[in-house]
Amino acid sequence: MAAYVRNLWYMAAWEHEVPDSGMLARRLLDQPWLLLRKLDGAYAMLVDRCPHRFVALSKGSRAGDVITCHYHGLSFASDGRCVHSPFGHETALAASVPTQPVVARHSALWFWPGDPAEADPALIPDFSGLDSDKPLTRAVLRMDANYELIADNLMDLSHAEFIHKATFGVNGSLMAVGRHEVLSDADGAIRNHWDMDDAQPPEWAKQMLTEGAKVDQWLHMRWHAPASMLLTIGLAKAGTGRAEALMPPAYDPHILTPETQNSTHYFYTTAATAEAADFALKVFLEEDEPMVKSAAEGMGDADFWTLKPLILPTDAGAIRARRRLMQLRRQEGES
Amino acid sequence: MAAYVRNLWYMAAWEHEVPDSGMLARRLLDQPWLLLRKLDGAYAMLVDRCPHRFVALSKGSRAGDVITCHYHGLSFASDGRCVHSPFGHETALAASVPTQPVVARHSALWFWPGDPAEADPALIPDFSGLDSDKPLTRAVLRMDANYELIADNLMDLSHAEFIHKATFGVNGSLMAVGRHEVLSDADGAIRNHWDMDDAQPPEWAKQMLTEGAKVDQWLHMRWHAPASMLLTIGLAKAGTGRAEALMPPAYDPHILTPETQNSTHYFYTTAATAEAADFALKVFLEEDEPMVKSAAEGMGDADFWTLKPLILPTDAGAIRARRRLMQLRRQEGES
Amino acid sequence: MAAYVRNLWYMAAWEHEVPDSGMLARRLLDQPWLLLRKLDGAYAMLVDRCPHRFVALSKGSRAGDVITCHYHGLSFASDGRCVHSPFGHETALAASVPTQPVVARHSALWFWPGDPAEADPALIPDFSGLDSDKPLTRAVLRMDANYELIADNLMDLSHAEFIHKATFGVNGSLMAVGRHEVLSDADGAIRNHWDMDDAQPPEWAKQMLTEGAKVDQWLHMRWHAPASMLLTIGLAKAGTGRAEALMPPAYDPHILTPETQNSTHYFYTTAATAEAADFALKVFLEEDEPMVKSAAEGMGDADFWTLKPLILPTDAGAIRARRRLMQLRRQEGES
Repeated sequence: MAAYVRNLWYMAAWEHEVPDSGMLARRLLDQPWLLLRKLDGAYAMLVDRCPHRFVALSKGSRAGDVITCHYHGLSFASDGRCVHSPFGHETALAASVPTQPVVARHSALWFWPGDPAEADPALIPDFSGLDSDKPLTRAVLRMDANYELIADNLMDLSHAEFIHKATFGVNGSLMAVGRHEVLSDADGAIRNHWDMDDAQPPEWAKQMLTEGAKVDQWLHMRWHAPASMLLTIGLAKAGTGRAEALMPPAYDPHILTPETQNSTHYFYTTAATAEAADFALKVFLEEDEPMVKSAAEGMGDADFWTLKPLILPTDAGAIRARRRLMQLRRQEGES
Repeated sequence: MAAYVRNLWYMAAWEHEVPDSGMLARRLLDQPWLLLRKLDGAYAMLVDRCPHRFVALSKGSRAGDVITCHYHGLSFASDGRCVHSPFGHETALAASVPTQPVVARHSALWFWPGDPAEADPALIPDFSGLDSDKPLTRAVLRMDANYELIADNLMDLSHAEFIHKATFGVNGSLMAVGRHEVLSDADGAIRNHWDMDDAQPPEWAKQMLTEGAKVDQWLHMRWHAPASMLLTIGLAKAGTGRAEALMPPAYDPHILTPETQNSTHYFYTTAATAEAADFALKVFLEEDEPMVKSAAEGMGDADFWTLKPLILPTDAGAIRARRRLMQLRRQEGES
Repeated sequence: MAAYVRNLWYMAAWEHEVPDSGMLARRLLDQPWLLLRKLDGAYAMLVDRCPHRFVALSKGSRAGDVITCHYHGLSFASDGRCVHSPFGHETALAASVPTQPVVARHSALWFWPGDPAEADPALIPDFSGLDSDKPLTRAVLRMDANYELIADNLMDLSHAEFIHKATFGVNGSLMAVGRHEVLSDADGAIRNHWDMDDAQPPEWAKQMLTEGAKVDQWLHMRWHAPASMLLTIGLAKAGTGRAEALMPPAYDPHILTPETQNSTHYFYTTAATAEAADFALKVFLEEDEPMVKSAAEGMGDADFWTLKPLILPTDAGAIRARRRLMQLRRQEGES
C-alpha cells in the first residue's frame, strides 16, 4: 500500500465531535490518536498509547489538562511529557507520548502528521465558507475503502449522470452541454470544473423556474492534498452571464482522511434539517459507497496503476490528484 | 496454494441459475465473472470488472446484448468490446473486458479459463444422463473447503461406511465383500469402482426385496479434471450377473468448481421432490462438510503432501486424481 | 511471534473439564489436542488429527481406550498407534498419532510439549494448595491476548490500585507503604512480593476489624515458566509480626496456557459460590481483559521490545519473567 504523505494538514474531526470530557479517540493514518481540548480551549493531539504498557490513554481519566493512564497511573501533560508517577519512579518522568500539531479552524480540527517545524497553519486549505453563523449540520461517516478511491469518485463527477440519476441527476446536461476543464493552482490545489450553459434544469430546480426555462449550471470541485475537497454548485438563469443566480452557490466540503489504508473518515455538511441529513446519507451510503466498494473489490490487493486502468478525458482531475500524491510521496521518500 | 489448471472445462452454473435478466455474477477460480445469456440464447462470459474503474459490470444494466456500467456509463458488447462512451471518448472504444469461452451443455454452463484456441467443446465430460426430460432438481451449494479435499471425499467412498452409516450406509458390505478397482481412461478420466456381489442389501433397498434376499451392488465414480465427477449406483438381484436390476442405475453428478482456494461450488442433482432435496442437503451439510472442514482445519496452511498423509489402498482413486492435477499443473507451468 | 518454549509443563485443563466420554478436544500452543481419560483413570494426550486424512479424532468414537476415526474408520490406541484398519490395510498399522506426556496433579492436567525423555513430573510447579478437600470452583476462561501480556498484568500488581480500585483495591496502600521485592528461586521461579505494614485495611476487610485498626497485608505472586502463577494474599493485625492472621492466606492460582499466539486459556479458582464466580468473572472480563486487549491493540504486530517500553521498577517481576522465557527460547533454539 502507498505510504501516507506526512507533511500535510489532514482533518481529524469536527470540533463539535470532541465530547464534554474534552477527549476524543480516533484512528487516523493507521495510528490511534487522542484529541484533547485543553482548559484554555486550544487543542492537543497525542498518540493514544501509554509509553509504559501501550494501553489507550483515552481509557484513562483527566484532571485539568493532565491525563492519567488507567492501567498503572502514569500521568501525562498535554505536551506529552510524563508529569507524575504514582510510585515515585524518576525514570517515568523522562518518558513522553509523541504529539503532533493540531489546529482548530473552520469548525474543524486539522493535524499535521509530519515534521512539526513545517506545520504552518497558513497551509490549511481555505474552508472559510464553513465559518458562517447559519445553521449547518457538520457530519462524518466512515467508508470501507481507500481514500484515493473515494476521491476518484468525487473528482470525476460524470458519475452523477449514472449513480445519482434519481437524486442529484443533472438530466443528461453533463453529457449534452458539459464543458470540462481541469486547472492547477500555484499552491498545488487542483480544480475540476464542469460548466453547463443553456442546459435543462436539474429536477430539484424546476420549481424555481418557469416551464421550459433553461439554466446555466456549474459544478466546481477543488482538491487539496491529501483529499480535502470543496464542491461549489451554481445555478443561474440561462443567458444572463451567471448574473441572475437562482440560488446562492452551494458550498459543500467533501473532506477525506484515511482511518486505515482500507477505510476513510468522510467529513461533509448538509442543511440543518433531518431531511437533508437523511438525503445525504442515502446518497453516500446507497449510491456512492456500493460503487466505491465494488471498485475496491475489483482491485483486490493490486495497486491502481498495475491494473492499467482505462484513462478517459473525464478522469483528468482524478488522475492529476493521484499523480500529485505520488509526487509528494516521492519527495518525502527522497528527503 | 496450488495454481488452477486453466486449459480445462469447468462447470460455471446450471443454466436455470441465470435469472430472467440474463446476467449471473459468480466468483470462479478467484475471479469475478459475469455470465450473460444473449438474446439468441447462446452464452457469453466476461470478467465482471469494468476496465475503467474496476466496478462489477453485473451492477450495471442491460439492453439487448449490451451491458452498461452503472458507474460512468461505458457500454460493452458480449464479446467484451467497449461499444459506447457516453462522453464520446474515442479511447474508450479501444478498451475491452476479457472474455472466456462458455458453452451450454447438459443443462449446465461450462467455461474454459485457459487458451481459447484450445477450448474444444468435445472435451466437456459426458453428462448426457442429465439431458433426460424426466423431472430432476439441479442444485448447487457452497462448501468452505478446497475442491481437492472435497474430491478426496468423493473419490474414497469407503467413508460411506462411517459418515453415512445412517443415510447411504451399505451395512458394512464395502468392508465385507467390496472389491475396489481404479482405472484410468485414455482421455484422462479416472474410474474408482466398488463392486459388492452377494451382499446384504442397503437399508433403503430392503422394501424392494424378500426377507433375507441378497444383492449385487456397485458404486462407480468417474472423475474428470479438475473435479467433475459422476457416480453411478447399481443394484441387482444377487446371482443374476446384474441382469435383474432392482432399479435403473442412479446417475449422480458431483461437479466441483473452485470459487476460491478455500471454497467450492458443489453442483449436484436430486429427485424432483422436496424430501429428496432436503435429504441430499442433510447428507452434504451435516455428514460430509463437517469432515471435509475438519480436514481443512487439520491441514491449516500446509500443503497436502508436506503433511505426509498415510496413503491406503482405498485412497488409490483420490491420489491418482491429485497426481493427475499435479501433472496438468506442471504441463501448464512448462508450456 | 516468539516460539513457544517446549520443554516445560503447561496446564492443559482442569481434570473435571474432561467429560464423561473421557475425551476433551482443546487447542493448545497452536495445535489441536485430544485429552483422553483412560479406563484405568490415567490420561493420554494425542494430537487431534488423524494421520490419514487429517480430521479431528475427537469427532470419532471411543471403545475402551481405543478411538476410531469417524471419517474412514481407522482405530488408534491411547499410545497413538494405529491398531485397526476396517479394510485390513497393513500399512495403516505402521501409522501413529503423535502423543505427548500428560500427568494429572493438583486437580489439573499438565502436558509436556517437548522432549518426552525430559518430562519429569517433579518439575510440575507445586500447586498442592489445590489438593484440599474444601469446596472450590475450578474455572477457566479464554482471553483474546498473548499469554505474556496477561502475565505482565499479573506480575505487576500495582495495577490493582487503578483497574481494581472498586473491587480488589487496596486503598492506596501499595503506593503509600508498599515494599516491592523480586526474588528468583533456584528452580527458575520468580517471586514478586508486595508487603504493606501498618496499612489501611482494604474495603473488603474492614468488617473484620475495629474502626481505625490497621493491618499488615502481603501480596506474593510466584511465577513458573511459561506463565503458571500463584498469588498468596495475607492479612494480619498490624504490629503482630503477622502472627495474628485475620484470615487464612488466600491461595489463588492464575495459570496461563497459550491457545494461540493471540489467545490464552486462563485457569483460576474461586470460592464455591455463584457470587464468588460472578465476581471473579466481572473482575477478569470487565477490568483486566479490556486493559490487556488495549495493550495488544496498541502493540499491533510489533514485538514487545522493538516498541521500547518504558520500564519502571514496578515492572521488575514482569520483565524478569519475560527475560527468563527469552533465555529458555534461546536454549531450545541452540540445542
